[in-house]
Amino acid sequence: MTRVVLATRNAHKVAELGQILGGLGLAIELVGLDAYPDVPEVAETGATFAANALLKAEAVAAATGQPAIADDSGLCVDALNGMPGIFSARWSGGGGDAANLDLVLAQIAEVPDERRGAAFRCSAVLVVPGHVGEVAEGEVRGRLLRERRGTNGFGYDPIFVPDGESRTTAEMDAEEKNALSHRGRAFRALAPMIERALR
Amino acid sequence: MTRVVLATRNAHKVAELGQILGGLGLAIELVGLDAYPDVPEVAETGATFAANALLKAEAVAAATGQPAIADDSGLCVDALNGMPGIFSARWSGGGGDAANLDLVLAQIAEVPDERRGAAFRCSAVLVVPGHVGEVAEGEVRGRLLRERRGTNGFGYDPIFVPDGESRTTAEMDAEEKNALSHRGRAFRALAPMIERALR
Repeated sequence: MTRVVLATRNAHKVAELGQILGGLGLAIELVGLDAYPDVPEVAETGATFAANALLKAEAVAAATGQPAIADDSGLCVDALNGMPGIFSARWSGGGGDAANLDLVLAQIAEVPDERRGAAFRCSAVLVVPGHVGEVAEGEVRGRLLRERRGTNGFGYDPIFVPDGESRTTAEMDAEEKNALSHRGRAFRALAPMIERALR
Repeated sequence: MTRVVLATRNAHKVAELGQILGGLGLAIELVGLDAYPDVPEVAETGATFAANALLKAEAVAAATGQPAIADDSGLCVDALNGMPGIFSARWSGGGGDAANLDLVLAQIAEVPDERRGAAFRCSAVLVVPGHVGEVAEGEVRGRLLRERRGTNGFGYDPIFVPDGESRTTAEMDAEEKNALSHRGRAFRALAPMIERALR
């Protein structure tokens, strides 16, 4: 059983990715970066989700000698030309999830309902030491509410209603959310590449 | 001498536009909205600079019965997909000029120098009551510093260095800035339309 390192210290993400990948029957043991406290933080200086995910996975694979999986993802708001995008986690300049969400709501406060479309996007990456990385993408489109609904999930989940749904992703349980989420889609698309690369 | 109303209560803008248009020898008397305290605020719900400028000029022309000039302008940051753009004046959700500038600096803090390009863009509009409006555009490209320099101007001027310059627009005097600024260019392009429409 190959040990694969998830290149994140975000406990929410470790749990979510564990759930998504755990259900796919891969012969891998998943561990978070908590198992490698000495791996330094990587500056996410890429211009795209894929570039940032590659930066993270490459650094972790190099530091640990193990295959590494990373993702970079975010909320792309139509009325903000696709932003916050790669800056989703630090949109307010360091204020955390609640401040980031409040800022987006304030920025598009006057944007009418018909222009409140948005998408969650995710690039998921596998890097095997000494090999080129594999990249998979996932997206879920929807629209943004004017106030929070629901307490599950994290990040911008409380204001995001996927197309065809009436609830926010923060009003869904983890299984429902993973079935349609950008991260669920990206990692399910990555699964066959993981299987092939680690065979 | 036709009286033309500048559709803004921003004293900086009234002074700047007065300076730009005053030097062009147009046979018009320019007054700010201060002369019409009863004209209500217009919600800037357009999706572009031109749409917002038209909303403002149309509202002022309708309320005053006079020709009205408006502009909408902002800073378009390459690394933010062209944002803050139309949201430049309220990017921090209501914190004012200093907070807006600080937020942009924080959002692109990790963006390397070669990707810190930006442009100031402006749409200037003339609306003559009963006539269609005229729209002119102006742009100045440059790059964003990591900290403020200079105390002239307003908005994002202290971090913006125009291409071919070494100083920020906040380190230039008004005449120098107007010669190259997005607003100067847009209003000089609008001048012949003003002349023709009010002849």
